[in-house]
Amino acid sequence: MLTLYYAPKTCARASHIALAESGLPYRTQRLNFAEGEQRQPAYLAINPKGRVPALVTERGTLTETPAILAYIAQSAPQARLAPLDDAFAYAQMQAVNAYLCSTVHVAHAHRFRAARWADDKSAHESMQRKVASNMRECFELIESTMLGSPWVLGEQYSVADAYLYTLAGWLEGDGVDLAGLPATRAHRDRMEQRPAVQKALAEEAAGA
Amino acid sequence: MLTLYYAPKTCARASHIALAESGLPYRTQRLNFAEGEQRQPAYLAINPKGRVPALVTERGTLTETPAILAYIAQSAPQARLAPLDDAFAYAQMQAVNAYLCSTVHVAHAHRFRAARWADDKSAHESMQRKVASNMRECFELIESTMLGSPWVLGEQYSVADAYLYTLAGWLEGDGVDLAGLPATRAHRDRMEQRPAVQKALAEEAAGA
Ligand SMILES: N[C@@H](CCC(=O)N[C@@H](CS)C(=O)NCC(=O)O)C(=O)O
Ligand SMILES: N[C@@H](CCC(=O)N[C@@H](CS)C(=O)NCC(=O)O)C(=O)O
Repeated sequence: MLTLYYAPKTCARASHIALAESGLPYRTQRLNFAEGEQRQPAYLAINPKGRVPALVTERGTLTETPAILAYIAQSAPQARLAPLDDAFAYAQMQAVNAYLCSTVHVAHAHRFRAARWADDKSAHESMQRKVASNMRECFELIESTMLGSPWVLGEQYSVADAYLYTLAGWLEGDGVDLAGLPATRAHRDRMEQRPAVQKALAEEAAGA
Repeated sequence: MLTLYYAPKTCARASHIALAESGLPYRTQRLNFAEGEQRQPAYLAINPKGRVPALVTERGTLTETPAILAYIAQSAPQARLAPLDDAFAYAQMQAVNAYLCSTVHVAHAHRFRAARWADDKSAHESMQRKVASNMRECFELIESTMLGSPWVLGEQYSVADAYLYTLAGWLEGDGVDLAGLPATRAHRDRMEQRPAVQKALAEEAAGA
């Protein structure tokens, strides 16, 4: 049994969707960010980074969204969540995931988590002002160079779709109008027709 | 033939070392960052992100260090640069690489590239002031939770070692005293005894 530690609306949603797609048995464990549960000793014993997601497996705990997504895909080959037999296509998928993790997620994090990178309030406000344009730029690049149709990799659905969908869910809150990102919007609509996505979102809303 | 686009002292060094370890035929192509070559049309046609590394293969171009490192490891199984037969150990390696990419590299980037995240000078200075403590914290966490001995994964050397070594090379410039990070320093010493590391550093210095 796999256990996913998550908080609602975070990047952990990508791993949650991947688990729902995989057919693997899993349970989820919700953290209360409002109460700072991610920084309490009980959770730091599971993930010393104090972040979500963390995936507890029989062999130990995994962190970092791209690593968790690839692990789920590899653990459920019959679900075809990654091009496991094609090293180049697989690397392309990993490149999308690494970009989402290191550039897109980080661009967004400067809104709520600016205190990671500076101590004074005026710097935080300055960072927050740039989030919308950075996120828009990231998704313009994604639309022009990383987003196939109907899925990120073209015909093959993969965990990169779950990740892209999750981070794209932050755009409106970050001040980006989806009207200028038609491929991202169409991708969202397609994702929300998938039963596994509906299942993960329902579980998240139920706090399961 | 693989071609690695790089600039000296950047994160591309990790991919360069991995290529040197792999035994695969490769050449390197140096970009002149001082002249902004990474943002000129000729290079944007290769990597629209305007960053290094980019690895040009017969099937197309790969970007993002974790994806390139994993691709090199998979393309040269005889070099044993990753635990390719153990999905969990492989995911642990990918988790280290994702952390280096999304958290450590980004912590460092706030020194020279603060303009990515804010437009005013005082915010840049504020971010720069926090780089040393962030980098120190990252490497303390690495030493306590991610860095085995003699290598990241313990007995097995992997591309994560090349990546960790590369980013650790920024510590002194970022204002972090290596005296407080003995495992990182010992890892550096071991790395610099490896012929492949020496080869990559010599090629980099020669501008090959
Ligand atoms: N590089 C990590 C980042 C994880 C991360 O930053 N998660 C956020 C939620 S989206 C978090 O747990 N934040 C809690 C905090 O900063 O206290 C990944 O991709 O999994
Ligand atoms: N997420 C990318 C980041 C690549 C990156 O930021 N590279 C830096 C050098 S360490 C760069 O090319 N900077 C040039 C610039 O910002 O103009 C990776 O890990 O490969």
